[in-house]
Amino acid sequence: MSALPAKVAIREVSMRDGLQIETPIPLSAKLQLLEAIVATGVREVEATAFVSPSKVPALADAAELVAELGRFDQVEFSALVASANGAKRAIAAGLRSIEYVVSAADGHSRANVGRSSAEATAAISDIAAIAHDSGATVEVIVATAWDCPFDGPTPRQRVLDVVEAATGFGADRLTIADTIGTATPRRVSDLVALVRSRIGDLALGAHFHNTRGAGLASAYAAVRSGVTRLDASVGGLGGCPFAPGASGNIATEDLVYLLRDSGVDTDVDLRAAIAAAEVARTVVGHDLPSALLRAGDRITG
Amino acid sequence: MSALPAKVAIREVSMRDGLQIETPIPLSAKLQLLEAIVATGVREVEATAFVSPSKVPALADAAELVAELGRFDQVEFSALVASANGAKRAIAAGLRSIEYVVSAADGHSRANVGRSSAEATAAISDIAAIAHDSGATVEVIVATAWDCPFDGPTPRQRVLDVVEAATGFGADRLTIADTIGTATPRRVSDLVALVRSRIGDLALGAHFHNTRGAGLASAYAAVRSGVTRLDASVGGLGGCPFAPGASGNIATEDLVYLLRDSGVDTDVDLRAAIAAAEVARTVVGHDLPSALLRAGDRITG
Repeated sequence: MSALPAKVAIREVSMRDGLQIETPIPLSAKLQLLEAIVATGVREVEATAFVSPSKVPALADAAELVAELGRFDQVEFSALVASANGAKRAIAAGLRSIEYVVSAADGHSRANVGRSSAEATAAISDIAAIAHDSGATVEVIVATAWDCPFDGPTPRQRVLDVVEAATGFGADRLTIADTIGTATPRRVSDLVALVRSRIGDLALGAHFHNTRGAGLASAYAAVRSGVTRLDASVGGLGGCPFAPGASGNIATEDLVYLLRDSGVDTDVDLRAAIAAAEVARTVVGHDLPSALLRAGDRITG
Repeated sequence: MSALPAKVAIREVSMRDGLQIETPIPLSAKLQLLEAIVATGVREVEATAFVSPSKVPALADAAELVAELGRFDQVEFSALVASANGAKRAIAAGLRSIEYVVSAADGHSRANVGRSSAEATAAISDIAAIAHDSGATVEVIVATAWDCPFDGPTPRQRVLDVVEAATGFGADRLTIADTIGTATPRRVSDLVALVRSRIGDLALGAHFHNTRGAGLASAYAAVRSGVTRLDASVGGLGGCPFAPGASGNIATEDLVYLLRDSGVDTDVDLRAAIAAAEVARTVVGHDLPSALLRAGDRITG
């Protein structure tokens, strides 16, 4: 596949992946950011994560935040979880869409959740049941799908093991994630093609970081290869211990610029996305890596 | 065309496009940077420009710099010129390869050289003759090939007018340049395909800035579409009045990372390119936008 789709859905992840390593900010500041995000027209927002408050203090207010989401009824909100307990908390808080993250690589899985990849994969069954029993949907996110910071390149069979468990246990969605920002377009196209061959009609999303500059190139390759959902973060908010301040998620506004210029609709208004990036910069109190936040839209005649 | 070539030639442009808007640095610092660049293994280096010293004071030492190049005999050096007079000065200084830049858009052409695009295009004839009469080669660089900061999107026929004059007057090489960093992969693929259909066997190069984050994605699209020569700058050195400090040329090391990871050889050693970027940062005295300069190579198992 190499034609471009008419439309790609963007999920805004700045509220979770963007804020999680920041110094905690007040709930009121998060809601200010969220209002700016909703104003972009985006339809999917990853609002927070239900994980250990001691490990991720920036998201310790997950339940309080979810209680505020009712006013934004045009948006589908989700939260990331890493365990059955997190899934229960997310659903109890009122969410109808959860993301369960499973590392395909053992090194990252053990560092992140203290379990092997196979153990985390097996838990998909329980978490899918928790979601479905309460009428919610569950997405499986395959972390370290290309490389692991501890184990090196992730064998493709490891990714397929998670993918097959996800489809077997009835996941409603699937995303493959370049957790440490090392993917490049050719490896992206290769893995997307392989995963798509195993998942039938299930929608496939992808998640990239711009840690090594190739985030947008990888996202574009993913779209050309059949991915129709991309995670992105206004301002490119979201750091990484390897490269402080310069390696967040791909910036929503940079992605929208590229896709719009390629004739691909995203629902997201570019000017509003840049404005939201400015709000993100204000609430976290430091500069962000987004290119459009500096350069603005292109000059058109 | 969509298969990747086994090899892409990189031309290192930090000495010219990178330094031209910087505060002038001493010749000794330039030579320090050049030594680091040559150590990367790159085979082509744009050393300087023979343009008005009052307009571009950072390159006022062009002749002095060229006098020092004899020691680096494994590299092909070139200089950018914008007039017949500049071509003569470059050749008198000892260069055997000149680049003549022509803006496809009138607005940029008049702002840059005080002539219309058609007038600048007509001068290709004289400049090619000056080069060829002295045994030198001439490359035509089509500036503002996608967009002009004054005129907006550049009509494709404008680009083809310059391309046809270049081939008609015997240019040895051709490069299309995204002067203001607005191109995106789909528009790149479209224009590359169109230009290639008009130039027969002439090698086609491309030049991108990362001003709006899409520089690497555009470069990769160009390579997939048949471009076999890319300009890049260590550290991503090279600013732009629209986006100070964050919008240089695509960074050599980021490009090499992406291409190496895609199985494309470039002659450039990644570790040496990162080291050269560190030298670039030191000689200009400020941070640079390169991603690899912060994040380093990926962790491999």
